[in-house]
Amino acid sequence: MMILAIDPGFSFTGYCIIEKNESYVALRNSGYLKLNPKHHLSQRIDAFHSFFQEAIPTYKITDLALETPFLGKNAQNFLKLGYLRGILYLLAAQHTLALHEFSPREVKQVVTGYGGASKDQVARIILQLFPQLNMPKKTDVTDAIAVGLFCIWCAPI
Amino acid sequence: MMILAIDPGFSFTGYCIIEKNESYVALRNSGYLKLNPKHHLSQRIDAFHSFFQEAIPTYKITDLALETPFLGKNAQNFLKLGYLRGILYLLAAQHTLALHEFSPREVKQVVTGYGGASKDQVARIILQLFPQLNMPKKTDVTDAIAVGLFCIWCAPI
Repeated sequence: MMILAIDPGFSFTGYCIIEKNESYVALRNSGYLKLNPKHHLSQRIDAFHSFFQEAIPTYKITDLALETPFLGKNAQNFLKLGYLRGILYLLAAQHTLALHEFSPREVKQVVTGYGGASKDQVARIILQLFPQLNMPKKTDVTDAIAVGLFCIWCAPI
Repeated sequence: MMILAIDPGFSFTGYCIIEKNESYVALRNSGYLKLNPKHHLSQRIDAFHSFFQEAIPTYKITDLALETPFLGKNAQNFLKLGYLRGILYLLAAQHTLALHEFSPREVKQVVTGYGGASKDQVARIILQLFPQLNMPKKTDVTDAIAVGLFCIWCAPI
């Protein structure tokens, strides 16, 4: 089982790749994708698609883990998040990935013990669990790792 | 100039293909795509992608015309509309289509003379303009034709 967990965003998209088999769980890769804000929306969406389109076969991904979105104060940001999620749904169908979605609250509840934890609190817990990981520049990365871990611990697989 | 105008939706997506050259404007095709509500969201998005992915080279599309979305009463529908729009942005980038977006109000204002026109009013005007067109089963089709016409009349091309 090779999980790709993604915290999508138009500024920074955090992602991680976690492998689980009968004897171990290993963090294979993690990082973030930055989209060029000077590029047109459709070019940024194309860049986002190309990045994960390439990563999926490279890492032999079997499962895609995402958080469910919620409508914040900015409806346009919510809609733009939908654009990226649409691309991920497309890739899941094209590569026949199992798709898992979890609410941000349940992920934080299980990973940190508190459903209202901040991004920094999530990051601290993730760094304790993976001491070899340097503190990423972006908490989007630790957010994505939290989603991937939750998927391994809690998804009905 | 070969315009693909789309009124996307998870139930029915209306579309039309309008050709414009120096001497005439012609409606090359119009219709609607129905996504199977029994299929998983990601499969429906894949079907939507495949349909237009095939139509674009078949009709040698050069321009894509869409309406700008607005947040209605249902945030989840708004988000799901974003999934389909994300796919269309991707296709626009991959096929280097010029992308045009117009507000529903300005389209209705120019096509019917009244920005608050109903879908039926839009349909009646479209049928007057294209008498050879039979009344489509879905007003999503005449909505898409209205967007395509507006694009020809008003887009800064």
